[in-house]
Amino acid sequence: MDLVVVGSVGLDDVETPFGKVERALGGSAIYFSLTAALLTRVGFVGVVGEDFPEEGVELLKARGVDVRGLERAAGKTFRWSGRYHEDLNHRDTLLTELNCFEHFSPKLPDDYRAAKYLFLGNIHPSLQLDVLDQSSASFVAMDTMNFWISGAPDDLRRVLARVDAITINDEEARDLTGQSNIVRAAREIHRLGPKLVVIKRGEYGALIARDDEYFFAPAFPLEDVVDPTGAGDSFAGGFMGYIARHDATSWAALCQATIAGSTLASFSVEAFSVDALRSLTHDQITARAAAFRRLTDFPAIVL
Amino acid sequence: MDLVVVGSVGLDDVETPFGKVERALGGSAIYFSLTAALLTRVGFVGVVGEDFPEEGVELLKARGVDVRGLERAAGKTFRWSGRYHEDLNHRDTLLTELNCFEHFSPKLPDDYRAAKYLFLGNIHPSLQLDVLDQSSASFVAMDTMNFWISGAPDDLRRVLARVDAITINDEEARDLTGQSNIVRAAREIHRLGPKLVVIKRGEYGALIARDDEYFFAPAFPLEDVVDPTGAGDSFAGGFMGYIARHDATSWAALCQATIAGSTLASFSVEAFSVDALRSLTHDQITARAAAFRRLTDFPAIVL
Repeated sequence: MDLVVVGSVGLDDVETPFGKVERALGGSAIYFSLTAALLTRVGFVGVVGEDFPEEGVELLKARGVDVRGLERAAGKTFRWSGRYHEDLNHRDTLLTELNCFEHFSPKLPDDYRAAKYLFLGNIHPSLQLDVLDQSSASFVAMDTMNFWISGAPDDLRRVLARVDAITINDEEARDLTGQSNIVRAAREIHRLGPKLVVIKRGEYGALIARDDEYFFAPAFPLEDVVDPTGAGDSFAGGFMGYIARHDATSWAALCQATIAGSTLASFSVEAFSVDALRSLTHDQITARAAAFRRLTDFPAIVL
Repeated sequence: MDLVVVGSVGLDDVETPFGKVERALGGSAIYFSLTAALLTRVGFVGVVGEDFPEEGVELLKARGVDVRGLERAAGKTFRWSGRYHEDLNHRDTLLTELNCFEHFSPKLPDDYRAAKYLFLGNIHPSLQLDVLDQSSASFVAMDTMNFWISGAPDDLRRVLARVDAITINDEEARDLTGQSNIVRAAREIHRLGPKLVVIKRGEYGALIARDDEYFFAPAFPLEDVVDPTGAGDSFAGGFMGYIARHDATSWAALCQATIAGSTLASFSVEAFSVDALRSLTHDQITARAAAFRRLTDFPAIVL
């Protein structure tokens, strides 16, 4: 096992201008593992309730995800419901029911503990700390959200101090640091712990910052973006999957991993829930990753 | 004369979280010509009132801008005042006084009419049409804004049908086409006339679209963005300046021009008004344009 993810597993109701789905597969660990599994072997840590469809577990297995860390608990599965605005850049959360997720206490199987790469999905920072205590990973990335930035700042700082990388969106980066300039925000986050800051910018792409180095990847230009849910976790799955597959965290590898993340995210948003990831092939992602080069490559400039 | 710009000349009051200026040099033709002049010879068409400071005209001349198309009219110069929000991505317009700009009727000196490249800055579409009738340019780019999209849609469509390129921001592109997806919006704009669509995205950079080709340039990562006023016109100045300097509109040249535009815009926003452009050197812009490559370049990816 090279890569382990700990995160949420949910049944989502999602409405976008292009339709809606109910009780669809969702949650950070689901999107992350389905994308990362295209690149490396992933161990899955999460919890589902009695109402979780067996089909979901079968999908993970069929896609090569190791589900020995999947816990089945009494009660219902975590539920989330959201409605996206016309431009897909904003959404309203209509419902959040923690259900069995409320008493989740992540437990890593023995060989998961030894995995070199670990991703702490967007869960309570105290649970992220629990997982860190169980893991001997040498490269740990975390995700978080506004809810924890304001609601559990002390625990969050403890996690930040112990991880190598963070994936975060513009708004969260500004909330976390109080810096509206994203270069200053990234520098401030470096000081809190993560040497690598990955800023997710939705339709504007992603940027990574380490020391004074920056790399930008655009979002792949898509005519049909159907459901942005899970785009950030799909990005993280591609990003960490690439790093684990090559066992490399050089700057060059991190830039390549950013393209891998953008590639996986671009597929994820083309259909509701995880539907676009169900049968996605290695050939498809290889072709799209290659197309990224043309989006930003330019001949030498003479001014 | 290779490149001509027609646009506004104003005295701006601007307030940002970093300070404020009053009656500072502004307007689309000012930003455009000061940036383009670093790359090529620019002819300036605009109007100023009796209160316009001679220092402004001297600056244009000192920077090599040809001001024979600058008209001096009775009354006051165009005035604009705006206040930026904390994140600099939004601003409130506090004042717009057309003054002598209200009765502006652009007249191109004879040799301006023969210039091969023309930029129609953000002025009333009926004036843009007047200028088109006077010019024999073979490559024309235009700018516009929401005010004309809703206020003068018929004239605007006539201009669109006659130009080769448009510079427009995300929100304007959506307003113009009714398409929230930017790929679809660009395609819709192609149908209205401009074969080349340049989408300006502020801190997220710029993208250009022609047929099914796309190229993205990030905004240069800056720790100190002081005043975004004129960033779009500075971009356009760098973009059109590059094209005119090389007399080339191949796809490769357009990609390079996008980097040139992003380079000039990045300097423009580092100080209030046009202050950062007053003494900007060719060496400085060459160095920053070279630094752009590292922001998006990555080694071949093996997924």
